Amino acid sequence: MVSRKKTRLKEVKAIKIGKDMSVNTLVNGLGDCAFGAGRLATAVEIYEEMLKEETTKFLGISGALVPAGMRNIIAQMIRERYVDVVVTTGANLVHDIIEALGDHHYKIGEAGADDVLLREQGMERIYDVVVPEEAFARLEDFLRSIFDKLDSKSRDKGYTIRELTKVIGENLSDRDSILRSAVDSEVPIFCPAIADSMIGLHAWIYKQMCPLKVDAFDDMKELIEIFCESACTGAVILGGGVPKNFIFQTALIAPPRETGQEGFDYAIQITTDTPENGGLSGATLEEAKSWGKIGAKAKAVTVYCDATIALPLIIAAVRARRRQ
Amino acid sequence: MVSRKKTRLKEVKAIKIGKDMSVNTLVNGLGDCAFGAGRLATAVEIYEEMLKEETTKFLGISGALVPAGMRNIIAQMIRERYVDVVVTTGANLVHDIIEALGDHHYKIGEAGADDVLLREQGMERIYDVVVPEEAFARLEDFLRSIFDKLDSKSRDKGYTIRELTKVIGENLSDRDSILRSAVDSEVPIFCPAIADSMIGLHAWIYKQMCPLKVDAFDDMKELIEIFCESACTGAVILGGGVPKNFIFQTALIAPPRETGQEGFDYAIQITTDTPENGGLSGATLEEAKSWGKIGAKAKAVTVYCDATIALPLIIAAVRARRRQ
Amino acid sequence: MVSRKKTRLKEVKAIKIGKDMSVNTLVNGLGDCAFGAGRLATAVEIYEEMLKEETTKFLGISGALVPAGMRNIIAQMIRERYVDVVVTTGANLVHDIIEALGDHHYKIGEAGADDVLLREQGMERIYDVVVPEEAFARLEDFLRSIFDKLDSKSRDKGYTIRELTKVIGENLSDRDSILRSAVDSEVPIFCPAIADSMIGLHAWIYKQMCPLKVDAFDDMKELIEIFCESACTGAVILGGGVPKNFIFQTALIAPPRETGQEGFDYAIQITTDTPENGGLSGATLEEAKSWGKIGAKAKAVTVYCDATIALPLIIAAVRARRRQ
Amino acid sequence: MVSRKKTRLKEVKAIKIGKDMSVNTLVNGLGDCAFGAGRLATAVEIYEEMLKEETTKFLGISGALVPAGMRNIIAQMIRERYVDVVVTTGANLVHDIIEALGDHHYKIGEAGADDVLLREQGMERIYDVVVPEEAFARLEDFLRSIFDKLDSKSRDKGYTIRELTKVIGENLSDRDSILRSAVDSEVPIFCPAIADSMIGLHAWIYKQMCPLKVDAFDDMKELIEIFCESACTGAVILGGGVPKNFIFQTALIAPPRETGQEGFDYAIQITTDTPENGGLSGATLEEAKSWGKIGAKAKAVTVYCDATIALPLIIAAVRARRRQ
Repeated sequence: MVSRKKTRLKEVKAIKIGKDMSVNTLVNGLGDCAFGAGRLATAVEIYEEMLKEETTKFLGISGALVPAGMRNIIAQMIRERYVDVVVTTGANLVHDIIEALGDHHYKIGEAGADDVLLREQGMERIYDVVVPEEAFARLEDFLRSIFDKLDSKSRDKGYTIRELTKVIGENLSDRDSILRSAVDSEVPIFCPAIADSMIGLHAWIYKQMCPLKVDAFDDMKELIEIFCESACTGAVILGGGVPKNFIFQTALIAPPRETGQEGFDYAIQITTDTPENGGLSGATLEEAKSWGKIGAKAKAVTVYCDATIALPLIIAAVRARRRQ
Repeated sequence: MVSRKKTRLKEVKAIKIGKDMSVNTLVNGLGDCAFGAGRLATAVEIYEEMLKEETTKFLGISGALVPAGMRNIIAQMIRERYVDVVVTTGANLVHDIIEALGDHHYKIGEAGADDVLLREQGMERIYDVVVPEEAFARLEDFLRSIFDKLDSKSRDKGYTIRELTKVIGENLSDRDSILRSAVDSEVPIFCPAIADSMIGLHAWIYKQMCPLKVDAFDDMKELIEIFCESACTGAVILGGGVPKNFIFQTALIAPPRETGQEGFDYAIQITTDTPENGGLSGATLEEAKSWGKIGAKAKAVTVYCDATIALPLIIAAVRARRRQ
Repeated sequence: MVSRKKTRLKEVKAIKIGKDMSVNTLVNGLGDCAFGAGRLATAVEIYEEMLKEETTKFLGISGALVPAGMRNIIAQMIRERYVDVVVTTGANLVHDIIEALGDHHYKIGEAGADDVLLREQGMERIYDVVVPEEAFARLEDFLRSIFDKLDSKSRDKGYTIRELTKVIGENLSDRDSILRSAVDSEVPIFCPAIADSMIGLHAWIYKQMCPLKVDAFDDMKELIEIFCESACTGAVILGGGVPKNFIFQTALIAPPRETGQEGFDYAIQITTDTPENGGLSGATLEEAKSWGKIGAKAKAVTVYCDATIALPLIIAAVRARRRQ
Repeated sequence: MVSRKKTRLKEVKAIKIGKDMSVNTLVNGLGDCAFGAGRLATAVEIYEEMLKEETTKFLGISGALVPAGMRNIIAQMIRERYVDVVVTTGANLVHDIIEALGDHHYKIGEAGADDVLLREQGMERIYDVVVPEEAFARLEDFLRSIFDKLDSKSRDKGYTIRELTKVIGENLSDRDSILRSAVDSEVPIFCPAIADSMIGLHAWIYKQMCPLKVDAFDDMKELIEIFCESACTGAVILGGGVPKNFIFQTALIAPPRETGQEGFDYAIQITTDTPENGGLSGATLEEAKSWGKIGAKAKAVTVYCDATIALPLIIAAVRARRRQ
């Protein structure tokens, strides 16, 4: 039994629940537990370390996090520079704009709604949330006004998607908006699949009459430069999809550092996707090491959990630690 | 649009993360969110209501919650009568005894351990936890001593499984033990599949030499009586399996109340199993209504989440509310 | 690149779909593919090898496979001795009896039925299947008649669960029944959590008036003896739960063979449960090696797939190969 | 019990496995079963009906289906016009090109490979598949040659992504290639997130020196026109992600038909994602009805299954039926 490397083992200590626990105390307790609890606590530790280090932090957002009520947390992460670069889906931007324009998302009692009836009522469903279709009418007017505002020379010469998201943010007055917060904090927002959203649909309608050029590849220059110029890099991935891959592939093109290190130095992934179907969304962070997307010695953890539960918990704990 | 029953809709309000938030404040914030966040907050509300009412609360435990560090929470729930009846797997009892006897579970760095090497090292793995095999040797000695202590007349006449779990609890001095806490708090522990555990294996070895009769069906009488005598009933189901069904089927045999109500009045399910494979573990609580296991008007919610994250969060929030 | 052990690598060859393919040809094609396709083909290869060898084959069944229409396949596997020992949940036995007594399960159009309405209509739902409650009335009469038929001396002395399942099978005339097929083919059916089923409920009712002793632990002797007497052993696990663990734990108690080998020699697991929540149902077969439940050199594969799709596919392919 | 609409219920009939079954006979048998089996059989029926009708069929592909060996099936579906429009991820195109250039994907024995070692060996992992990094060097040369071949005027004026995929296909000689088959069969391939792939990375490198304009939004015109001009539409969605939404959102912009119908008339979704996390990948097809993406009366089914198992099975059955 000598060969048992006991030093690598850490005793599981059962968590006790206190009288009116702070989130940070709870997470400290989870740190002595295993399974998801232990992984969540590890994510907090990694995030805390990322914030202490001179780390450029990339946030990937997929899944309908804005409709679920995660908009303020993400805006807060941007404003407090918990993240330095955002890569997201078009849908999260669309729903951020909808809220910024004064419309709302609503919870329905049960996920098993009658969707044909909802259609008749003009309510569009996202799991247990609905959006009134009027919100999309206001969105359309807003987007049209944005496209009109774009500088005509540049509109002809071409915008990057990241420039487009910036102009949208500049025209939103709601300071809780993700897009507006990103402008205020000089955090670039990338959205490689922007065509795959209402923004894409309205851009198409606009282009029927007026010129509007947005290049599919131009964003990569800025994103790759940010990665290459960073002494240290971290990725926080919420849910997989295009944002996950788009962030990680950046590391493929970057030359290794002087230290010989390659890939991201830190990675946190919060997802309910698992590896068994072979898709990238559920791929382990270990797999990313075979590609050089994540460094061989990176600190990395996947928390298998609904992001609407894990993200608030992690950010609340990290914030508490930052103030101590 | 008149037909849109706006009264049923509740606006999603995005959560903001405060400076050093308490768990309860966090959960309050999640209550305005949707998806898993909203469901978790609903679970807290239902639990709080169950504790205010004269509700008999049944706890179902499956999954390796004790190895993961959830032992103290469960013991605490028993001691503070957050639960009145426990139905569990044999494995959780085995690992509770192991801890009570002074042995420990250990976290390994990564889930992807070399299992053949672990075998050589005498370490038995449960996801990212290992148990040294010496712990099982001590368990064997302890169980043998328990079987010897059983009253010889009763041993011949027959014990119920619930009586057996009680005797085990009486012989554990660790007050953090689930089994011991249950004895101290007069909470019965049922374990219908007890044969499917190390307790079963050692009972079989013991029975090679000495008589030991434990009836497979005798527990049902007590469990059903508890259900029938309760004015109001609630189920807290961690993870599905036999405990989930064993608790719910109790309601099938009970006559409807004077009020005409049948089935459980409250139900909280924390699981990562989803309904699509048709198995009972992932079955919705709605499905249980078609059987009369859960009342048509019951307050019920499923939180799709790793129980090692959701359970501490829910109990911490409920405890904070109870003290206000 | 010399160190790349190319010999271990096998080229992925894309499957082509033929004109009117046989299942076996399809599975052959899947064998050159990866992910679930490759794993399914490996399961077929392992099963074929198990059938060629002098292997004692243990089948674990959990999940509602009988209501979903897998009853005949399982009965067929028993009759053709694709399996030699069965461990199952009580629910699958209950639904096998219901069909054997002439009642049926029905598919509903959608999983999202109105369960309160179904309750009023006397239909009990299992995902997209319903069972009329009359079927349970007939089940009750049948079970009562079975308990009455049990030899009074033995009824007092005590039955094993496996003896009880045998008596039930003897009293069913439907040759497609799992229970009856097991009797006809001398395949023992174990059901460690039998109390957790309608059989358990009706046994409890019966015991209110008449003696009926069924020991919780007595089955283990026969099961362990079968394992120990086998030169070679294989496990086919459909879906996890108690049957999975009950089969694997048998290997814990058995002494190593003369060859030094321990644990199962073959294992096939078909499940939609994944390892991330730490529960035994989703635990990998690798993990089982750390316990000695599966041999270090065993041939083992997990197919992550709904068993109602994978099982018919696998059995059809194995049968085709056996005839060639 | 009069109110029980028995007419809507269909008896579950257990499948029997024949001597050397054809896939079609197997699927016929599954059609009388429930859960995944029943849903898979329904998918075959819907596909068969789509092929009989004058239906424009949109195929969405996400997940690493090409590395897993599904390349030929997809190419075959294109060549035999089982699909008329393809929307895919960049990764599947990249791996299609890799195979077309003569490189291969390889299966490794176990998913739990040592990724740091694989990195040293120049093998990049996708679950249980690896790709040698030399393949990516050849890919780079090929893509550079493609970019050079683009007409210089158009290169300056701007290509659509769909035009780019066409040029790539025209330059591949492998007739089993998805891209080449699409050219041969005049099936357009859209790839809205093309920047999120090696194609994107190499486009970026190329653009450092030479002009190359590819508009992010220009594809939508063609895609929406195809939808609007179709008398009847069907969607076959493999795995969610951007392709799923990009196909469905097309229906949002199209005016209702003369018949008053809106949205897709048929939809088949094969996925392992479930709805509980609220993301679009796992969203039900019912939810899509609330948006008008799928018609209220559409024939639609989701098969919860690894696509590498379900797709070959479905296509083999459909092909067999088409020939009868």
